[in-house]
Amino acid sequence: MRKFTQIKEEAFEGNKLLPKYNLVLFTWGNVSVADHNQGVFAIKPSGVPYEKLDVEDMVVVDFDGKIIEGNLRPSSDTPTHAVLYKHWKDVNSIVHTHSTYATAWAQSLLDIPIFGTTHADHTISDIPCAPPMSDDMIEGDYEYQTGFQILNILKEKKISHKEMEMVLVGSHAPFTWGKTAEKAVYNSAVLENIAKMAYLTRQLNSSSPRLKEALIHKHYERKHGANAYYGQEKKK
Amino acid sequence: MRKFTQIKEEAFEGNKLLPKYNLVLFTWGNVSVADHNQGVFAIKPSGVPYEKLDVEDMVVVDFDGKIIEGNLRPSSDTPTHAVLYKHWKDVNSIVHTHSTYATAWAQSLLDIPIFGTTHADHTISDIPCAPPMSDDMIEGDYEYQTGFQILNILKEKKISHKEMEMVLVGSHAPFTWGKTAEKAVYNSAVLENIAKMAYLTRQLNSSSPRLKEALIHKHYERKHGANAYYGQEKKK
Amino acid sequence: MRKFTQIKEEAFEGNKLLPKYNLVLFTWGNVSVADHNQGVFAIKPSGVPYEKLDVEDMVVVDFDGKIIEGNLRPSSDTPTHAVLYKHWKDVNSIVHTHSTYATAWAQSLLDIPIFGTTHADHTISDIPCAPPMSDDMIEGDYEYQTGFQILNILKEKKISHKEMEMVLVGSHAPFTWGKTAEKAVYNSAVLENIAKMAYLTRQLNSSSPRLKEALIHKHYERKHGANAYYGQEKKK
Amino acid sequence: MRKFTQIKEEAFEGNKLLPKYNLVLFTWGNVSVADHNQGVFAIKPSGVPYEKLDVEDMVVVDFDGKIIEGNLRPSSDTPTHAVLYKHWKDVNSIVHTHSTYATAWAQSLLDIPIFGTTHADHTISDIPCAPPMSDDMIEGDYEYQTGFQILNILKEKKISHKEMEMVLVGSHAPFTWGKTAEKAVYNSAVLENIAKMAYLTRQLNSSSPRLKEALIHKHYERKHGANAYYGQEKKK
Repeated sequence: MRKFTQIKEEAFEGNKLLPKYNLVLFTWGNVSVADHNQGVFAIKPSGVPYEKLDVEDMVVVDFDGKIIEGNLRPSSDTPTHAVLYKHWKDVNSIVHTHSTYATAWAQSLLDIPIFGTTHADHTISDIPCAPPMSDDMIEGDYEYQTGFQILNILKEKKISHKEMEMVLVGSHAPFTWGKTAEKAVYNSAVLENIAKMAYLTRQLNSSSPRLKEALIHKHYERKHGANAYYGQEKKK
Repeated sequence: MRKFTQIKEEAFEGNKLLPKYNLVLFTWGNVSVADHNQGVFAIKPSGVPYEKLDVEDMVVVDFDGKIIEGNLRPSSDTPTHAVLYKHWKDVNSIVHTHSTYATAWAQSLLDIPIFGTTHADHTISDIPCAPPMSDDMIEGDYEYQTGFQILNILKEKKISHKEMEMVLVGSHAPFTWGKTAEKAVYNSAVLENIAKMAYLTRQLNSSSPRLKEALIHKHYERKHGANAYYGQEKKK
Repeated sequence: MRKFTQIKEEAFEGNKLLPKYNLVLFTWGNVSVADHNQGVFAIKPSGVPYEKLDVEDMVVVDFDGKIIEGNLRPSSDTPTHAVLYKHWKDVNSIVHTHSTYATAWAQSLLDIPIFGTTHADHTISDIPCAPPMSDDMIEGDYEYQTGFQILNILKEKKISHKEMEMVLVGSHAPFTWGKTAEKAVYNSAVLENIAKMAYLTRQLNSSSPRLKEALIHKHYERKHGANAYYGQEKKK
Repeated sequence: MRKFTQIKEEAFEGNKLLPKYNLVLFTWGNVSVADHNQGVFAIKPSGVPYEKLDVEDMVVVDFDGKIIEGNLRPSSDTPTHAVLYKHWKDVNSIVHTHSTYATAWAQSLLDIPIFGTTHADHTISDIPCAPPMSDDMIEGDYEYQTGFQILNILKEKKISHKEMEMVLVGSHAPFTWGKTAEKAVYNSAVLENIAKMAYLTRQLNSSSPRLKEALIHKHYERKHGANAYYGQEKKK
């Protein structure tokens, strides 16, 4: 058991952040944390309220979704997480929520346009909304296919998952990811905030323009580029 | 008195959840809990603030609305609860609130369209809005007739109260129900959340499509079907 | 000093409720309480934050706005309160806030239509928005004239201040009143809630109908009529 | 070090107010405080969460943006603050946030119209939105040029920075200022509130008129004019 302690603790801490940042109602969200060396990830058990969660409740699963350790049933979204970890060696945490504004954009089947520098501080592209999948895929292995919806929309838009750490699954809700659980949950909170601002922007001015290219690159580079000067550590 | 202890305690606890989930302002909501064997239910007294409520304040009423036990006047909505319990043997708790977004939909006289999986996790249909009743009915036994408005809209839409545990009463506000007070209040919070997301979805895209049928059934079945795999207990 | 103790205490308690119910930012609201026998009222001092307020800071003023007791300058809205007390012998408390949704309706110069039973539980009419006053009146005794704007809009709409305890002053913000400070503040919170629901209702359906007459009277009468059956006390 | 104690403490206290007033998510905002005699200002370090902030973390910088004291990297917006202090001898504190409603107006590239007295209590003009700068300026010294965008929009609109203590930078977010950190942060909270009310006003009535001139001047003068009668101190 001891070999999974670290990912279980980090997944536990990550899940506890979801209600703290007002990203979930009841049990509607889950955080997982992967150990790529061992080929496993720890994930929230299905349907357990955050306030009753214990580190030992985290379920350890391999990248095919097979349970390796744990007494509870893992999140029903586990196969989606598994697919993404299998394809993304450098992603250590994935978050799924039904946060209100991000979910409204997903239900509207619209990408979130890059309207301002708050958005550009995090990514240079519109946040893509993957279309709902075909009936065949839904009736097959639905949560597994949801992973491929996410992979495919990024491929189609020619956007790397390293640059864009958040996607809307159309008619459903958002997924975000990152190097750590803290970063992946941070991305969920950022997405919800950007989604709300973009909602208000469109209501105020239905022809609000996308942010101009020079500003997109300026803001993204000052935070993430080779010569980044935001924060206290040199980015590389 | 001892024979009503359980329903009074459960009704008390249920009423205390309403302010916790931000579903009520002042005294604008009530929870009841029924004992079908004894043919009675316990309900909040009328106009008493939640923070001053005591278990012993709960009023016990029969399914014709006659007071069986209690020193206070029961909620003015008592006859609505009574009608529903009389018709639904398997419903043990009913909740009425004026929660903001659900009430706005009720005031708009619009069903809440099923726009996403958050909705489909709970029901496969649009959430129906019963039309305001005729003047004759209003001037007669109004709260009693409100119960029939709820029964009739479900009948007309051919939806079972087992599948759909929430209804909007047009120009008025929502009612929800469930097997327990906890579940019935949960449904009120879910409805408010779905109502807000649907509001935002329509504002973003006035032609947002209903969720496709395959997704409606997939999400509902994974939570409520014979082979449900959401949560920790086998559903039957 | 002892003869004003009661109104000062009640005004103090009423002012403390404004931040509790999220009706004010900084110092943007005031509550007064009148003693009609002595012809005076106690009101919040101008520009003092609620958390620094003390009972002894309340300023006692007569119905012509003359300071009777107190070391601080009274609210700049004092002449408006004075005019209303002078005309309404049965009103003991007045509240002014800039609560968000009610103020947005006032800025839109629109009455708040009676869309549902939440509204009808409190009044049978649309909540009137008084038009902005003439330049002459503004440049004269502005706050004094604001009192007449409120009196005049009720007169013009043929609505009694006993039935309608809330008014929007166009381009400005709401005023509410009642028999006690608790009731007058309650009315401010009710107004803000009704204003938000009405906002959402109009956004959802620009042709949402007014509540039908039979429902308006049913809901109002069950709470305020001769045979009222809401709450624990017989209304007269 | 002792000679900067006062501005570091005031800047520290000012930064702590940002989360208190819900003006920031994560680290998205900064407060600075200047000492014009010494030609320096203290500012929040870049990317440090408010709850981990310490007085000693404040970075002291001169009006050309050169670090004078401090172990951390100053806010990336430091050059914007520097430009403004260099031009405004009477401004002692500057605040930058990405507060939700103000940022939505900035993203919409719209001035916030003066719709009501809440707005007029603080300024007599629409709150200006500076246009996004040219590509040359962005690719040059971007944050430095942002300061000039603010100076230029005020010049173009013929508005003094003494009368208007808040500006939207188009596609970006708001800046506010004042005599003290408390006042500058107060202005950020006021701006967010005015921005929300103006948003709701436009949604309710797309042809809501600007506040009439007589009311603009009445409200502004009663708070800020030679004969001001709002608050407890004589304004001069």
